[in-house]
Amino acid sequence: MKKEILSKIENNKEVVGIIGLGYVGLPLAVNFAEAGVNTLGFDKNQKKVDMINHGDNYIGDIRDAVLRSVVIDEHFLEATTDFSRIRECDALLICVPTPLDKFRKPDMSYIENACIEIGQNMTPGTFICLESTTYPTTTENFMLPIIERESGLKVGKEFWMAYSPERVDPGNINFHTRNTPKVIGGYTPDGLEIGIKLYSKAIETLHPVSSPRVAEMVKILENTYRLINISLINELALLSGKMGINIWEVIEAAKTKPFGFQAFYPGPGIGGHCIPLDPFYLEHIAKQYDFDLSMIHTAGHINMRMPHYMYIKIATALNKHQKSVNGSKLLFLGVAYKPNINDDRESPALEIMDIVAHKGGIISYNDPHIPHVKTNKGHVYNSIELTQEAIKNADCVVLTTNHSAFDVEMVKKHAKMIVDMRNMIPEGGENVYKL
Amino acid sequence: MKKEILSKIENNKEVVGIIGLGYVGLPLAVNFAEAGVNTLGFDKNQKKVDMINHGDNYIGDIRDAVLRSVVIDEHFLEATTDFSRIRECDALLICVPTPLDKFRKPDMSYIENACIEIGQNMTPGTFICLESTTYPTTTENFMLPIIERESGLKVGKEFWMAYSPERVDPGNINFHTRNTPKVIGGYTPDGLEIGIKLYSKAIETLHPVSSPRVAEMVKILENTYRLINISLINELALLSGKMGINIWEVIEAAKTKPFGFQAFYPGPGIGGHCIPLDPFYLEHIAKQYDFDLSMIHTAGHINMRMPHYMYIKIATALNKHQKSVNGSKLLFLGVAYKPNINDDRESPALEIMDIVAHKGGIISYNDPHIPHVKTNKGHVYNSIELTQEAIKNADCVVLTTNHSAFDVEMVKKHAKMIVDMRNMIPEGGENVYKL
Repeated sequence: MKKEILSKIENNKEVVGIIGLGYVGLPLAVNFAEAGVNTLGFDKNQKKVDMINHGDNYIGDIRDAVLRSVVIDEHFLEATTDFSRIRECDALLICVPTPLDKFRKPDMSYIENACIEIGQNMTPGTFICLESTTYPTTTENFMLPIIERESGLKVGKEFWMAYSPERVDPGNINFHTRNTPKVIGGYTPDGLEIGIKLYSKAIETLHPVSSPRVAEMVKILENTYRLINISLINELALLSGKMGINIWEVIEAAKTKPFGFQAFYPGPGIGGHCIPLDPFYLEHIAKQYDFDLSMIHTAGHINMRMPHYMYIKIATALNKHQKSVNGSKLLFLGVAYKPNINDDRESPALEIMDIVAHKGGIISYNDPHIPHVKTNKGHVYNSIELTQEAIKNADCVVLTTNHSAFDVEMVKKHAKMIVDMRNMIPEGGENVYKL
Repeated sequence: MKKEILSKIENNKEVVGIIGLGYVGLPLAVNFAEAGVNTLGFDKNQKKVDMINHGDNYIGDIRDAVLRSVVIDEHFLEATTDFSRIRECDALLICVPTPLDKFRKPDMSYIENACIEIGQNMTPGTFICLESTTYPTTTENFMLPIIERESGLKVGKEFWMAYSPERVDPGNINFHTRNTPKVIGGYTPDGLEIGIKLYSKAIETLHPVSSPRVAEMVKILENTYRLINISLINELALLSGKMGINIWEVIEAAKTKPFGFQAFYPGPGIGGHCIPLDPFYLEHIAKQYDFDLSMIHTAGHINMRMPHYMYIKIATALNKHQKSVNGSKLLFLGVAYKPNINDDRESPALEIMDIVAHKGGIISYNDPHIPHVKTNKGHVYNSIELTQEAIKNADCVVLTTNHSAFDVEMVKKHAKMIVDMRNMIPEGGENVYKL
């Protein structure tokens, strides 16, 4: 069976199934299709599937022409909502979400459902690899029993498993799916061998490790590193504010150290799908080992409180102008969680808007990349036009995302008052209040 | 007065006084002397002063020939214990220690004494700069009042002040005092101007910032960054041990991420004069602002407990061989806090030795760079010769510092059992127990 799948891969005869067609799965599918591999994308969302099959792109990091070419001209990529077509696939790469639930516990239901669908539909001789971020031991102890139970097949003999974490950084102009080195750990040596052969078509550099759990920990380490460093700099920013120290100037100066330092920047909180969530996957499994991850716990605590501190910043600034939040008009610029992307998942801007609205503030926003939003509290807003009138009309303009599309000079010229949470106005100004 | 000092600097006529001739002050003094500046080094330690005046070097990062040359041949550098000679100096650069006391509160007595000596002996027209790591506001709120009181002179008019943190990294072969960019913040614009002119003779690149407190925060940020990241990786190493994950393999794999990651390595704890101490300076001043620095607090907590965890590792390993710590012979390899240096300040190895001795272990050690040590508990040990006999004789060999001088193969061949806290035996082995 191993020979068969390796020979298929060698001759570009394999069918690769990608489960989950979001910001991880779709670029990966396009990369395989570009390499001339027959690629089948699975997603429950009929709208996404229809868009792909019409060659319509919805992911910023994929060029429209490339998607059109592999779907419409070359027919290497097809999308479907029909999970029974898993049986057509020789390899299945799982790129489903791994969110936290309301109590910040891992929601494993997407992975579980994918495993059930795979187990019920796969044929013997299939290679299965998870890309979603999750806690170490997931592949071995969570996925494997489900797949073996549902399929009646035996790992290492009738199918193979591996874990290979995605490293997609939306909006990164230098590193894409193809040229970002990829870590992979196989459940058996054969699983690793097949995984490397297969992924080599879509990824330039593969870094094998000794087990899926090592690969799982790699991804958690990468994101935990970011979480704790952003939390540290946010905490130092708050103290610096009290001490009359410009934290941005401090960071620029620290960056001149030519060894042993990497710069992180403060902001209104941490957003996106990875950094605010992934470390808590590790915290979850650590409890099973009677282990308390105090650094992650503390960092999470700071991050959770940042939107509240940001509300205090806004209220304090308004207070200097003898205004209350209650009844003031606040214009937020940017609701994406980082610059120049259209993703508002876990965006701190939305949380701040909810707090300000709850305290009686009158909210509007502009984001050139996100025409409308729904906040956690269920408020729905539409992006307004960013005119001089709109800026003049606001009691306070809050800079929440540093999109390069924003005309900061124009905003500064017309705003009564600005709370700048992203150092978009480095030189400051009379009515500019910084983080 | 400003014109006078600037003209002296321009014509190499100034006398630079360096207060404190340790691993920061002596290299700085040598750099000024190498630039042909008359340099006077102050230290209370008669032995150090005598050594320097005889051209005898005691700092690893200085080449012996260079010290001899500037002292003996060119007479540009002289050392003294006579602080009244401060009056001969046009500039005074303070490089004294800033330790923590037993309750982890900053011990400011070295800075205070330096300021008193300066205030009582300086002449008008002197430039004063602190290099020691300390909490933000030290220059302005702690030093300045002492110097003005003792001297009767007025800052900005009769003398100038600045803060410029040292970035010395002992043992770093690429970056020395001269080629490491240096941050400097003046108390007044004149102080900054004079400071930059002066330091340019000894340092290639200067990075000016707007105030001493910004420069003070820069250094704290740099070292706090290291503290929290080492603490994080130590915590993850302990969890990984329980989960059967090789943390060193995880780190090597994470390093293949080409953006947004910097590797730190676990170990038996954090040593040296900077990383374990400096962040607590910030914690100290933060309390004055009713501010709780939870990341530093948590990191300090982990670091404090590491030697205890390391004792548990040793006890657990011995237990596998049906031995107790009590009565076992333990040979520690390396007592320096990092590889290839002769510095054992705050070294975790010494703390572990104290714990093991307290539990009845029979301690010996070898360190090619440190012939004898005194632990915190007052035990004195002499480095034994690292023979095959010595290794065979030990119930357990503990690898505490990864000096490149150690013949790890030989140790592995002859040791009954090894606890490897520094991944010196990456491939492991039957009787090798890792962090």
